[in-house]
Amino acid sequence: MKKVEHIGIAVKSMDVSLPLFEKLLNTACYKQEAVESEHVLTAFFKTGETKIELLEATAETSAIAKFIEKKGEGIHHIAFDVEDIEAEMKRLQGEGFVLLNEVPKRGADNKLVCFLHPKNTNGVLVELCQEIRS
Amino acid sequence: MKKVEHIGIAVKSMDVSLPLFEKLLNTACYKQEAVESEHVLTAFFKTGETKIELLEATAETSAIAKFIEKKGEGIHHIAFDVEDIEAEMKRLQGEGFVLLNEVPKRGADNKLVCFLHPKNTNGVLVELCQEIRS
Repeated sequence: MKKVEHIGIAVKSMDVSLPLFEKLLNTACYKQEAVESEHVLTAFFKTGETKIELLEATAETSAIAKFIEKKGEGIHHIAFDVEDIEAEMKRLQGEGFVLLNEVPKRGADNKLVCFLHPKNTNGVLVELCQEIRS
Repeated sequence: MKKVEHIGIAVKSMDVSLPLFEKLLNTACYKQEAVESEHVLTAFFKTGETKIELLEATAETSAIAKFIEKKGEGIHHIAFDVEDIEAEMKRLQGEGFVLLNEVPKRGADNKLVCFLHPKNTNGVLVELCQEIRS
């Protein structure tokens, strides 16, 4: 785990939360991106080497919609930057952690990602992410 | 907001969670510290420029005990490093955010801290922290 790549925050309305986080963080959103496969709209802010990622559901089936229904708006996950996602997935499985996807999948912001089951991580949804090298 | 200084995670048992996070983060805990005024025991891990702080309640009146009772174990707050905490508190109040303490208080890890009310920050408990300069 090289660093905290981003912190994901579930929001009901990007129209409300984007300007709110611009005021809170005192910095402009530098990118918005739809991730069709996950049915989410994302917005990114930079703070030091870590990004803050707002996530708005674009379908009721989205994990973000389900999270907000159950827990309300708030911090959804922590993503750690890794050098080699497949090696890290293997290491964590060996330590007894449970992967939510067995094969890295494509996430926002040009990343390969894998989530760990929060039942084994103190209720914290952990994402591993590795930059896609072209 | 210079960077994400740390991410606070509420845990029921430090004895269980400390070795768990050592395995997850693949790094040893470098400091444990009791914060008597907050009735918490803390444990810190480094990942890049951000720390992961585990928080265990040492009294039923602790905010961490109440959080776990209501929401279960998981991510409790995000702390941002600021250069001048009083200036940042003033700026955020001017933007309509609500401070949970009007005067900076002493936190763990040699910091002055101030929390923002999560009702104005999309349910995210935000901490400002500034290193105490001796």
